Amino acid sequence: MATTTSSVTDICLAAQEASRQLAATDSATKDRALHAIADALVARTPEILEANGRDMDAGRENGLDAALLDRLLLDADRVAAIAAQVRDIAALPDPVGEVIDGKRLPNGLDVKKVRVPLGVVAVVYEARPNVTIDAAALCLKSGNAIVLRGSSSAAHSNAVLAGIAAQAAEEAGLPAGTIGLVAGGGREELAELATQTGIVDLIIPRGGEGLKNALKGVATVPVIYAASGNCHVFVDASADVATAVEIVLNAKTQRPGVCNAAETLLVHADAAPAVLPAALGALRDAGVELRVDGRTRALAGADLAAGLLDAGEEDWDTEFLALTLAVGVVDSVDEAIAHVNRHGSGHSEAIVTNDAAAARAFELGVDAACVYVNASTRFTDGGEFGMGAEIGNSTQKLHARGPIGLRELCAFKYVVTGDGHVRG
Amino acid sequence: MATTTSSVTDICLAAQEASRQLAATDSATKDRALHAIADALVARTPEILEANGRDMDAGRENGLDAALLDRLLLDADRVAAIAAQVRDIAALPDPVGEVIDGKRLPNGLDVKKVRVPLGVVAVVYEARPNVTIDAAALCLKSGNAIVLRGSSSAAHSNAVLAGIAAQAAEEAGLPAGTIGLVAGGGREELAELATQTGIVDLIIPRGGEGLKNALKGVATVPVIYAASGNCHVFVDASADVATAVEIVLNAKTQRPGVCNAAETLLVHADAAPAVLPAALGALRDAGVELRVDGRTRALAGADLAAGLLDAGEEDWDTEFLALTLAVGVVDSVDEAIAHVNRHGSGHSEAIVTNDAAAARAFELGVDAACVYVNASTRFTDGGEFGMGAEIGNSTQKLHARGPIGLRELCAFKYVVTGDGHVRG
Repeated sequence: MATTTSSVTDICLAAQEASRQLAATDSATKDRALHAIADALVARTPEILEANGRDMDAGRENGLDAALLDRLLLDADRVAAIAAQVRDIAALPDPVGEVIDGKRLPNGLDVKKVRVPLGVVAVVYEARPNVTIDAAALCLKSGNAIVLRGSSSAAHSNAVLAGIAAQAAEEAGLPAGTIGLVAGGGREELAELATQTGIVDLIIPRGGEGLKNALKGVATVPVIYAASGNCHVFVDASADVATAVEIVLNAKTQRPGVCNAAETLLVHADAAPAVLPAALGALRDAGVELRVDGRTRALAGADLAAGLLDAGEEDWDTEFLALTLAVGVVDSVDEAIAHVNRHGSGHSEAIVTNDAAAARAFELGVDAACVYVNASTRFTDGGEFGMGAEIGNSTQKLHARGPIGLRELCAFKYVVTGDGHVRG
Repeated sequence: MATTTSSVTDICLAAQEASRQLAATDSATKDRALHAIADALVARTPEILEANGRDMDAGRENGLDAALLDRLLLDADRVAAIAAQVRDIAALPDPVGEVIDGKRLPNGLDVKKVRVPLGVVAVVYEARPNVTIDAAALCLKSGNAIVLRGSSSAAHSNAVLAGIAAQAAEEAGLPAGTIGLVAGGGREELAELATQTGIVDLIIPRGGEGLKNALKGVATVPVIYAASGNCHVFVDASADVATAVEIVLNAKTQRPGVCNAAETLLVHADAAPAVLPAALGALRDAGVELRVDGRTRALAGADLAAGLLDAGEEDWDTEFLALTLAVGVVDSVDEAIAHVNRHGSGHSEAIVTNDAAAARAFELGVDAACVYVNASTRFTDGGEFGMGAEIGNSTQKLHARGPIGLRELCAFKYVVTGDGHVRG
């Protein structure tokens, strides 16, 4: 069972103990445990829904809004989807043991750089109880023990989900302590978890800015902060107008509330007379609020001008996460690159162009996790990239950049083999 | 010239500006700049020695001890060696632009994972002025701008060295700001440097625990802390006695003051009667102080027993960095692994064995940057590993583990190319 009543430190120590064994556990055993978890989730759906019902009741009493209640809600279909995701993760290749690099040194020593689990990964998250299982499955597959810390609003759901998963994993042969859940959802538990130096190897927050800021203030163990995305689409002088309009529309409107949606459109001055009326018209028709600079307004045409708002300086730095787009005209690829590097958050940046030199300049010059040439920013996603799944998306440069999949949940070690080699 | 009189923030901003250009600078240009730096160092040796003389005078006045003065000292040979090291770094393969991974997704998008510079790397260091040039050359080769912050005891030497390097780099076509030096060596400058979030991408401290602790208290930008090394040699039941003695002797005595030297010898009980007298005798003859557990003492033989000290609990956790070794007997490979994981610092750990199963268990079970089978721990080194050079050695698990060479001074980005792809 998940050790939901132990202290944070006890849970972390148990996870560390388990992690030593997990690092040497073969893929077949881990996959069996994942399938056992999926089976148990389906078989014990009534328990899960009963616990979730208690969280939903409390949420309604506490006045949670409809969106939060929907995130909290589980039903049989959602539980089945969670179980299916666990089976999908089981089917992914095991990253542990991959030989990343290897060679024989001139002195005959064999050096292998081998992927290994990080050890103990803590995941702190908010209202969605499905994260309990998604995160546990990703960590287990990558050979890590996991310590979960959800929010108090989902406490009953999380406790039952983690308990089912921990029991199934243990019965399938994994060490006790593989999946631990911190019972309290308060700031004290967060601080205790975030200061387990030498025990917890990584903390991943999955939640809003409040959660990230709470961690920033206290964490002494490494944290990978999931990204905010102030993403741009730059339409170059040579761009095909129809392609440009389609990409901008997709990047802005296909799912505006996510971090890889575009927030600013930049158009090369030479393309602007053709591109802007078409793009702005399509965006307006899709219900997008347009905040534009003076040059954009001048080129938009009388038909559109009335509906445009003037962009303020802060609009270039804003992640709207809504049907709002800042639009500006630039005179060159270099100006576009400079704008992106100044205002972007290093997430996903796109150029639409038919000019090979412009594409190359943008690829080299833009400092971001993902740089797109003639494609929508919306593809930045572990699933889309063929990683199978992701636990978040990093805009930091160390360790993991872009989607955090199974490999990014790993470290490596050097294994060096000789036959009595000593250093001269 | 190095901007030695600007504020820390100005230097960092200039470095960031330079880093944008450096990321797109080809290898030939960077290598030309490195050779220009080496040439200038040799040509301007008198200036360097004059400045170093002033630091040496001040050091003597301030009562620096002989070891510190020796670290501070430059002469024509040492300057020539520094210049030669720069040429060696120029000759290494450029890590920037390496395609780490790549594939075509089912939808036809091409995804390439490409190595790119981190951006701005700050290196904070102590008395050795040669670090000024070593660190600058490694960062320049890997396409990073560098901000250096040395100690006040080497201020004149560092200013001249950084000035020569910055001027040579700029004259060779690299952007101004590529090599910056923070003038003050005080804690205030350190704190200002360590909080340049969004400007400085990484800080690497090269120095003692005092420097690391000073950083830990203030840093908000990512830091890779160089390692302490509490390294072990475990002699398994099946080990060849002569091989075991040779490896232990090398790991302990070849250079006892460094982080990859062994600090504890563990011997399997089955091998102890043969190994201990031979190993302890050789170690004693090499002048090593031996702190042993009771079982070791009992097996050492009357000849050796008188010279042995009793190990205290703290000895298993101590990085002696001297001719001192803790010695214990264990009953199994698993006990050795558990001891290493409990007391080691995750640096370099060796097993001496002829048993394939024991070697495999140790490789899988020991959680360290470098795990050795039948080789001395002393090989953990960027040069030995064929990385050409290193800027430090990491015992952390995220991003860089083990030697930090040119590749470890890089991040990566995904470059995604389509022909109008949008997400459905």
